[in-house]
Amino acid sequence: MRAVVIANDLLNVEQRPDLVAGPRDVVVNVRAAGLNAADLLQRRGFYPAPPGWPADIPGLEIAGDVAACGPGVSEWRVGDRVCAIVGGGGQATQCLVPAEHLIPIPSGLEFTSAGGFAEAFTTAYDALIRQARLAHGERVLISGAAGGVGSAALQIARAWGAIPVATVRDHAHDERLRALGAHEIVTFDEIESLEAVSVVLELVGAAHFQHAQKVLAPFGRVVVIGVGGGGRVEVDLLSVMSKRLTLTGSTLRARGRGEKADIAREVTENLVPLWASGRLHVPVAQTFPLDRVEAAYEAFATPGKFGKIILTTNEGR
Amino acid sequence: MRAVVIANDLLNVEQRPDLVAGPRDVVVNVRAAGLNAADLLQRRGFYPAPPGWPADIPGLEIAGDVAACGPGVSEWRVGDRVCAIVGGGGQATQCLVPAEHLIPIPSGLEFTSAGGFAEAFTTAYDALIRQARLAHGERVLISGAAGGVGSAALQIARAWGAIPVATVRDHAHDERLRALGAHEIVTFDEIESLEAVSVVLELVGAAHFQHAQKVLAPFGRVVVIGVGGGGRVEVDLLSVMSKRLTLTGSTLRARGRGEKADIAREVTENLVPLWASGRLHVPVAQTFPLDRVEAAYEAFATPGKFGKIILTTNEGR
Repeated sequence: MRAVVIANDLLNVEQRPDLVAGPRDVVVNVRAAGLNAADLLQRRGFYPAPPGWPADIPGLEIAGDVAACGPGVSEWRVGDRVCAIVGGGGQATQCLVPAEHLIPIPSGLEFTSAGGFAEAFTTAYDALIRQARLAHGERVLISGAAGGVGSAALQIARAWGAIPVATVRDHAHDERLRALGAHEIVTFDEIESLEAVSVVLELVGAAHFQHAQKVLAPFGRVVVIGVGGGGRVEVDLLSVMSKRLTLTGSTLRARGRGEKADIAREVTENLVPLWASGRLHVPVAQTFPLDRVEAAYEAFATPGKFGKIILTTNEGR
Repeated sequence: MRAVVIANDLLNVEQRPDLVAGPRDVVVNVRAAGLNAADLLQRRGFYPAPPGWPADIPGLEIAGDVAACGPGVSEWRVGDRVCAIVGGGGQATQCLVPAEHLIPIPSGLEFTSAGGFAEAFTTAYDALIRQARLAHGERVLISGAAGGVGSAALQIARAWGAIPVATVRDHAHDERLRALGAHEIVTFDEIESLEAVSVVLELVGAAHFQHAQKVLAPFGRVVVIGVGGGGRVEVDLLSVMSKRLTLTGSTLRARGRGEKADIAREVTENLVPLWASGRLHVPVAQTFPLDRVEAAYEAFATPGKFGKIILTTNEGR
């Protein structure tokens, strides 16, 4: 197989041995692999892959078709179209995935956008539905709404009957955010003039949180899943008490194989039908072939884009 | 009846009309009424009683015997020995309590210490068991361990098979804290050298929280129920994410009648048997008759005591 390999902060595409499936693993021919902020951190040595995953091949999400199944895998067949979050190794022509982490791609949808589905939608689903228990009719503040997770969260909130309020650094993408379901769109310094919200999906960190905590309704929940804008915040414990607020957070990457399987099953049951019917979709900003990985990372790091950056592979197949 | 009445920051004992029970209320002859920090706040105008409770008579917890039942009350009889949290009006010879908020006093226990049971043990139970879901074998950091709620929390944690670690301002009460179940006892500046804890019961606020947040184990939960030591804290959102921490908080007083009934029922089922058997008990520092209410408040405000300050009433009955 061919794979993007991190070597001293550089990204090279190298030949590596083809993969062999363990008992409960599936080898996927990767057709598309979405880029994520974690890839940029990993490249600089800050966010190592968890144990058991390739340490030097980046890539946290893939879409492709099943190339081979381990002897203990009965639920997938060669040729099935699947996507998944992986612990690493996604930016390659092949990737090993535990069978129970695979999510089926609805028929008729392209691999390209499917390569940007798993990480963003699973992260947003886990944070909004599993952690914050977002309910029908609740107002939810979604930071970083123009990013992959944020735009997935907007769509999930709308599908759940909640009222998504998008917070943005500027109003460049308002029209597209409204199309994804944003009910209101405000910049960070306008947040404190909002009506109260029941849930805050915190993807930015301090620069956003300092405003967002002031508009929480009683029983409000904040779920922190990104802190690029600073991790140290001042919290008013008196308002935590008097409003019975909850602040929590997580990363997906560090979870156990079993919990990841639980989440993939819920995503398959609850989100895939909405994806199939077009109520959820993956905005794609730009695609790059594997050999142009450096250009892809540069495009990812450039602010102002809307939608995912996707690496495409196995074009000849 | 006679009642403590707040008038311009002064506490007078005045004659008031006897109370009449509404359909689902009980009139209790108050025998003992514990003092709480909220009384001192309320006296200074900072913590008004919730709607429906006497605005000018302080007192959040009582013990006594049932004097009369409203027409819709079938579960209590005149003479039953009961204790309760009330929204206000406890520091009087009579108090009106919703029937479903009453907790039975086990036979053989004195009214005096029972007057200090309801608020402290209900608050500690709600925070540790209902909110933090403290589990057998978990280490729990209990701040303000020499206070009413703190010493109740130590005993509940021990009864649940958890490992209570007490944090104190000084080591003056170590022996008594060990007798209540404290496994380790540390001052605030020693907290960061502790082994990790799964739960923090935050009764102090910033001065304590800043240290406590650093020793949280993965999946750690902080429940904030007091912020006398400062309400504004710096929280590290990155560790909230990476350890999947949860920060939450509440006050009991603001809750609805139904939720308070739920909690009283749980306390009756889960704590009263332990209280009856002597596994839980209320340390009493000092008692004062109703007429000496000013002296009682002064004793409450004096640092360094161990156990509750209790007002006793209806001595002649």
